[in-house]
Amino acid sequence: MRFLSFHCEYFGYKTTKRSRSKIFEELSDDLKQNEIENTIVIFISIEEIDEKNSNFLEKGIKEIINITNQLKVKNIVLISFAHLFGKLSSPEFGLDSLRKLEDLLKQKGFTVLRPPFGWFNELELKAKGHPLSRISRKIK
Amino acid sequence: MRFLSFHCEYFGYKTTKRSRSKIFEELSDDLKQNEIENTIVIFISIEEIDEKNSNFLEKGIKEIINITNQLKVKNIVLISFAHLFGKLSSPEFGLDSLRKLEDLLKQKGFTVLRPPFGWFNELELKAKGHPLSRISRKIK
Repeated sequence: MRFLSFHCEYFGYKTTKRSRSKIFEELSDDLKQNEIENTIVIFISIEEIDEKNSNFLEKGIKEIINITNQLKVKNIVLISFAHLFGKLSSPEFGLDSLRKLEDLLKQKGFTVLRPPFGWFNELELKAKGHPLSRISRKIK
Repeated sequence: MRFLSFHCEYFGYKTTKRSRSKIFEELSDDLKQNEIENTIVIFISIEEIDEKNSNFLEKGIKEIINITNQLKVKNIVLISFAHLFGKLSSPEFGLDSLRKLEDLLKQKGFTVLRPPFGWFNELELKAKGHPLSRISRKIK
């Protein structure tokens, strides 16, 4: 797992069309578009090596919570993102892992917004400009 | 060199404070904030391996121009960005390379907006949601 985090005053998305992935989530009305304020926006890749690492989710959550603690935010956007220069897992494993990550973070009291898997999205964000406003992490 | 490109309807930035880099550009009023429409926004890392590769700029420009041709845009935002999982060049080499890249793209008729090196920025962007709206490239 690797991710790039932006600390944002505002984030919004609107689903446009199906991506090339064969795996995708059905679109209910409440998934088509959404927005949130005062959040970290995590562009995240689930990687091939994660498929052989039983505790990568636990380690990833620890890193994410470290960031939320430093920034004092309770809102998290999780965007599946293929463009972070890693070798991706299968889409089945990727979606399953993102769902688990979302559930585990919700159990810990976070509000989690996750745009649907397998779709292109228009994105709008207003990112803050302080020393921790952009962070990247690789989980091994 | 590696970069992550977002195709955006709108991009704006506002400089906030000095980053940790010892190398930085002086802030003139026209550099403190700016905005542009219908652009690609390129988050870019100049890497250690680029210091030994005399034609990396040429290769990088070719990739960038391929993208602008596909998207039919003439505006380019170049943001120095450390968070793409690469090993960075020295900041001196990084700034020098970004300036050259900016000049070469301007010579080819592009409008280039480059937020000043060595500063944190607030960012605002509205990204499109089509198959080429997010692209990453690594130049070897």
